[in-house]
Amino acid sequence: MIIDCHGHYTTAPKSLWDYRDKQVSVFDDPKALAALAEPHISDDQIREGIEGAQLKFQRERGTDLTIFSPRASTMGPHLGSEETSLSWARLCNDLIARICRLYPENFVGVCQLPQSPGVPIEHSIAELERCVNEHGFIGCNLNPDPSGGYWKDPPLTDRWWYPLYEKMVELEVPAMVHVSTSCNPAFHTTGAHYLNADTTAFMQFLTSKLFKDFPTLKFVIPHGGGAVPYHWGRFRGLAQDMKLPPLKELLLDNVFFDTCVYHRPGIELLCKVIPVDNILFASEMVGAVRGIDPETGHNYDDTKRYVDAIEGLSEADKRKIYEGNVRRVYPIDRRSARPAQP
Amino acid sequence: MIIDCHGHYTTAPKSLWDYRDKQVSVFDDPKALAALAEPHISDDQIREGIEGAQLKFQRERGTDLTIFSPRASTMGPHLGSEETSLSWARLCNDLIARICRLYPENFVGVCQLPQSPGVPIEHSIAELERCVNEHGFIGCNLNPDPSGGYWKDPPLTDRWWYPLYEKMVELEVPAMVHVSTSCNPAFHTTGAHYLNADTTAFMQFLTSKLFKDFPTLKFVIPHGGGAVPYHWGRFRGLAQDMKLPPLKELLLDNVFFDTCVYHRPGIELLCKVIPVDNILFASEMVGAVRGIDPETGHNYDDTKRYVDAIEGLSEADKRKIYEGNVRRVYPIDRRSARPAQP
Repeated sequence: MIIDCHGHYTTAPKSLWDYRDKQVSVFDDPKALAALAEPHISDDQIREGIEGAQLKFQRERGTDLTIFSPRASTMGPHLGSEETSLSWARLCNDLIARICRLYPENFVGVCQLPQSPGVPIEHSIAELERCVNEHGFIGCNLNPDPSGGYWKDPPLTDRWWYPLYEKMVELEVPAMVHVSTSCNPAFHTTGAHYLNADTTAFMQFLTSKLFKDFPTLKFVIPHGGGAVPYHWGRFRGLAQDMKLPPLKELLLDNVFFDTCVYHRPGIELLCKVIPVDNILFASEMVGAVRGIDPETGHNYDDTKRYVDAIEGLSEADKRKIYEGNVRRVYPIDRRSARPAQP
Repeated sequence: MIIDCHGHYTTAPKSLWDYRDKQVSVFDDPKALAALAEPHISDDQIREGIEGAQLKFQRERGTDLTIFSPRASTMGPHLGSEETSLSWARLCNDLIARICRLYPENFVGVCQLPQSPGVPIEHSIAELERCVNEHGFIGCNLNPDPSGGYWKDPPLTDRWWYPLYEKMVELEVPAMVHVSTSCNPAFHTTGAHYLNADTTAFMQFLTSKLFKDFPTLKFVIPHGGGAVPYHWGRFRGLAQDMKLPPLKELLLDNVFFDTCVYHRPGIELLCKVIPVDNILFASEMVGAVRGIDPETGHNYDDTKRYVDAIEGLSEADKRKIYEGNVRRVYPIDRRSARPAQP
């Protein structure tokens, strides 16, 4: 079985994004907000988006199951208010739940949290519980920078976030660290902000005692870990200079990297320097990069081809990356026990 | 000849840092500021710092010449005022000039600019000119985020920066893109902020027309280019999705990467994916990582060992990385023409 741990619903009908634009534009007008009707999205519209893209690519590339969450760039917690963040997260998560019910063999859900800059993370807990308990979701995406590129909330290792971590531990679900759109003109969203956030989160974990406090808490750092594997020697050396234990002992029971790296030399490096037990297969399709690489004739984001091609990995190692590690991090089997469509 | 394009004066006597602490603490008290005496630093004190570290490592590792600039983490443009930034930059640059005069075979200078958040970049031009014309310096370090982790100044590709670029082109000197300390608790300085800035700057260049406006302008992106080479497929794909030309054509006449990557697999990746003409040897010693890698028995930052060990590089390619490319980017030979000590 091949499980892709990182897919977003990027192919929703236009009415969803139109609704969001309107919602954000009237967020401070209670009357207009109350009058705003949520978009009606039919099963056929969902099928059209999914079958022409994510499901088609699953079949073409030979992957089986995608851990699926709302589009990351449009989470936009910096837009609107706490109230609009909550209703937007519920709407997006409910769409993911519908997709998972339409295609129970192909998709399992991970939720967007209703974060809002400066709003206590406690306010996101009810939506996590709802998604796990009512929708059978198996994790959440956690945004370390709800300000959208200004990094105003505390580091992920601050006690500010602990109430969420307590709930994650109780529910036995991991978080993928994933920012949304950058509204800071310095940072291109998918070319800088995403990768910077990955590197930033890893270094926050490295310099903290978070995993002493939460020994079973698990995070996936997407996009191949940002700059981390490429600079693994730097991180090993920084930890050593700080008299910390080796990285494996310090945080590799809790921190995992996905394979969203869009060329073979990058995936080769990842698999060379990061212990195989910490690598989870992912492609983020359909996501940041949609073209065909003229150097290979295949989609840049067809990451399975790169993993398949690595010579130094045994078949057992590849099974870990494709399935075993994902099952250690995410409670995949819980999906078979999830409630049927109401 | 082996030229290290990235070294900082991290071994100054304590009196320099004490002075800076005082200067920053009284920056808004004109009387106290005027009364503050610059530290007296003797040639012997300079020799002691340099000979026990940078010069010793040059000899041990077999490198010849270091392109040397003031310590990056203490540039601190977010501290104090425009006035203190200017006097601090002058003081630090004058120390680099003294080192270059004491060891003319071993060091050539690059200057710190007197940047200050929100202060027009025009105000940094006089110091660049002074350093190039009076001290024989061959470049500058340009900080894309003088706010120290809040990214409040415009992207490097904004016209806001053009007056500096006009002067760089006129003087025929490049800039290394280099941030200073992060005062944002989200970003560890050397483990996140430095690498994020490298990735951020590259993506700013990729999405701009800067090099149409300045075809001869040159930037070095340090720390192996942040996350860029590891995600080279992502950047190629993003450019392609934007209908931009291939990266080589788009910006590799103007953007170069150093080899400050502190393990062999990282350097191997760099040399595999980035054209050899765009790689400049560097170690940043004595810098962010000072320990010995237990996996090799050598210093993490002894990057020459990694480059030497790469099998796929011809001797001619290695000569480019060690010397030829540095000479194409920096006007190295100008140093022989620089003025003698006054």
